[in-house]
Amino acid sequence: MANDKKVKAITSMEEDFAKWYTDVVLKAELVDYSSVKGCLIIRPYGYAIWENIQKIMDGMFKETGHENVYMPMFIPESLLQKEKDHVEGFAPEVAWVTHGGNEKLEERMCVRPTSETLFCDHYKNIIHSYRDLPKLYNQWCSVVRWEKTTRPFLRSREFLWQEGHTIHATAQEAEAETIKMLNVYAEFVEKYLAIPVIKGVKTEKERFAGAVNTYTIEALMHDGKALQSGTSHFFGDGFAKAFGIQFTDKDNKLATPFQTSWGVSTRLIGAIIMTHGDDNGLVLPPAIAPIQTVIVPIASHKEGVTEKATELYERLKKVCRAKIDLSDNTPGWKFAEYEMKGVPLRLEIGPRDIENNVCVAVRRDNGEKITISLDNLEQEVAKLLDSVTQGLYNKALASRDSMTNVVTDLDQMIETADTKPGFIKAMWCGDRACEETLKEKAGVSSRCMPFEQETLTDKCVCCGKPAKKMVYWGKAY
Amino acid sequence: MANDKKVKAITSMEEDFAKWYTDVVLKAELVDYSSVKGCLIIRPYGYAIWENIQKIMDGMFKETGHENVYMPMFIPESLLQKEKDHVEGFAPEVAWVTHGGNEKLEERMCVRPTSETLFCDHYKNIIHSYRDLPKLYNQWCSVVRWEKTTRPFLRSREFLWQEGHTIHATAQEAEAETIKMLNVYAEFVEKYLAIPVIKGVKTEKERFAGAVNTYTIEALMHDGKALQSGTSHFFGDGFAKAFGIQFTDKDNKLATPFQTSWGVSTRLIGAIIMTHGDDNGLVLPPAIAPIQTVIVPIASHKEGVTEKATELYERLKKVCRAKIDLSDNTPGWKFAEYEMKGVPLRLEIGPRDIENNVCVAVRRDNGEKITISLDNLEQEVAKLLDSVTQGLYNKALASRDSMTNVVTDLDQMIETADTKPGFIKAMWCGDRACEETLKEKAGVSSRCMPFEQETLTDKCVCCGKPAKKMVYWGKAY
Repeated sequence: MANDKKVKAITSMEEDFAKWYTDVVLKAELVDYSSVKGCLIIRPYGYAIWENIQKIMDGMFKETGHENVYMPMFIPESLLQKEKDHVEGFAPEVAWVTHGGNEKLEERMCVRPTSETLFCDHYKNIIHSYRDLPKLYNQWCSVVRWEKTTRPFLRSREFLWQEGHTIHATAQEAEAETIKMLNVYAEFVEKYLAIPVIKGVKTEKERFAGAVNTYTIEALMHDGKALQSGTSHFFGDGFAKAFGIQFTDKDNKLATPFQTSWGVSTRLIGAIIMTHGDDNGLVLPPAIAPIQTVIVPIASHKEGVTEKATELYERLKKVCRAKIDLSDNTPGWKFAEYEMKGVPLRLEIGPRDIENNVCVAVRRDNGEKITISLDNLEQEVAKLLDSVTQGLYNKALASRDSMTNVVTDLDQMIETADTKPGFIKAMWCGDRACEETLKEKAGVSSRCMPFEQETLTDKCVCCGKPAKKMVYWGKAY
Repeated sequence: MANDKKVKAITSMEEDFAKWYTDVVLKAELVDYSSVKGCLIIRPYGYAIWENIQKIMDGMFKETGHENVYMPMFIPESLLQKEKDHVEGFAPEVAWVTHGGNEKLEERMCVRPTSETLFCDHYKNIIHSYRDLPKLYNQWCSVVRWEKTTRPFLRSREFLWQEGHTIHATAQEAEAETIKMLNVYAEFVEKYLAIPVIKGVKTEKERFAGAVNTYTIEALMHDGKALQSGTSHFFGDGFAKAFGIQFTDKDNKLATPFQTSWGVSTRLIGAIIMTHGDDNGLVLPPAIAPIQTVIVPIASHKEGVTEKATELYERLKKVCRAKIDLSDNTPGWKFAEYEMKGVPLRLEIGPRDIENNVCVAVRRDNGEKITISLDNLEQEVAKLLDSVTQGLYNKALASRDSMTNVVTDLDQMIETADTKPGFIKAMWCGDRACEETLKEKAGVSSRCMPFEQETLTDKCVCCGKPAKKMVYWGKAY
């Protein structure tokens, strides 16, 4: 039976990367635009990816002793204003609720852009003694930031995220928590999303509003732009002092606790798309793929094909997220459809395969076709899914390496930023003025001061004064 | 070692039911009040209950073919106004966002009180042909309704819930979905929360704004007040017409689809508290209890006690959500603490128990102490947890039965409503005026017209005209 659906064509990356990205998110049915300006509808296929991310991360958070809570979505203006740097950073981009029903509110409230102030308000209530510390809390929710320009997953007025908020008796313990959670993020992104990241600390200019130190994992996209993929903040005792949080320590003296927060968002889905995707659409790492293996029968009108394909499906769904497509669409259409949707592995099975007791597996990451015996289907599929993850990671790492350049003076920086997409490694004196000069003249921002420092030269790339740090610079989302 | 913590005392139910309820939610650490008026903080222990509810229900939704999505949290005013009855019902109680950052919005938006209008807007975009139907969507999120008086879990300005939204080619299919999801709710609440419910349909007066029919499950609380615990709405094609959603049917003609929505919220936690709780605190059904079994060592300073208790814990944590309390608090304090938190089963183990190769299990639902052999600990604990669930359900059912009265005329109705807490079964002519009279004179509202109809008399309890339906009446949360 003929079908009216057409194979979906998308813009190529080379032609127009931004258009390619938009084509992928729409045609893979990850999102739909809504009537609410700057806000997205996350469709079932996109939301299933987020659910898989949540499930793995939530497990990692719980294993490291964290508990989930839920805070109000509103912040009264007076509460937002308690920590000076914080309110300066966020007030210009919040949505304000001014009326409840027909009545004007006595005090307007913003929809949370992040919840530090709410957690502090709660901590003040529940923390009295050293016995109440630490509190290791996390929240899954949506937050709102009134952005001018928006792009699906990368920047939208409302987005889904998790925000961890912890409070500790000592600065050392809080700082160790900050680093621990950055490592959890790095492990998750590298192992499950197959995206290599640079771990490091932000410069003062790029710090979160109110933080003493902001740690980050930075990934490099296909187009050579960096994507900040997760951040972890050490607050010192600044918030605690602003909110008057105190506790009685073991020596029965009043002390001030130390805090952290850390978050990742649906931005990670943007990172997956722009790290692994290609001109045929999405490419999903198996760990978070809603469908890990799709079975497509070939010549399914021939006797026994549908039955055999169904038998494979029944076996596979016990070991992975499997799907069988028995629709009346052509095999060619199905191939294109599941390639668009980034399904990591496709199994084709036709009359001749059945005769030979095999099927053909096609890897989404490199297109490789492998004939596998039906006798050990489950093991072979599991192995292939692991290979896809490894293949994706290796490819992304090679791509990042090929797009990482070293420069030693300002002219080189300007030329490289202008002609070569990617990370630029260069030394820095630690002066904010140089950071601003580089932004202005080369269009790059400091992405992070990596934990793995190297000495490229001993002079600042900008002013030539003695260098203090090696920094990753780049254009960024 | 002495401990400064005191056993927490709460108001008794008989003395002041409302105060008892508030004491339980605070002292069991389910919630904390926030600086955001009418909004709650759900603390780790309360949120863990909600996570357990979500996990089971989400599985039931997925088994019945539903997919999760995420819609924007804002609704532009013009979108909210598209369906007349709906906007009338909700506009008076929404929170309005009027400014983004420093700029006044061109059109104000409300924070979603429910998302019918957003789903309709999306359906209009994605539904074209009968091949696109049905869509069986669900969303887990928070919603806002600007309530005047609030109570933890029962009524708050922001609450967590799930809202299912489905769209179908025919009215029959949509109506069947409405009933199917009501049955899923009833099964969940009875089987996992151990709360018996009455399934039925709401009168026109009590219908959801914009619905053709609203189905409900009604539970009876300890104090004799009813709690609407889940609702499922059939919309006919009203929303589809208001939003201009159409599809090409199999005969290539334009047709209008039919819709449903259904929801349960954190109110279910209120239902658990007020159905099973007692003067010692919370009593949790095992299926959703964050801790199912707590192990308390007795005389733990004696040799081998802590080790044996830990051994039991290691065995039990493989088969249930187990906790061991090795803190320096006294056993008596621990007993009171885990009773307050509603842990279904407590295991006590001391030197003499160890000698006899047993431990003592204490059921939270009825206080019964059972000596069990350590040889088959896992099986005995599993059996006991099942017995607790059954015991809770039976007790709640007996309580509901003892608080269900039958009346046949208005005087009886007024007297019964005044003197006997609980459901009142009575016949009704179907006239809204009688419903209003009963509300005014007896203070009761119609809870539902149950699916299981009985003929108590042939006359309306209010006007004496021929009766059409047997109705459950009552005071309600």
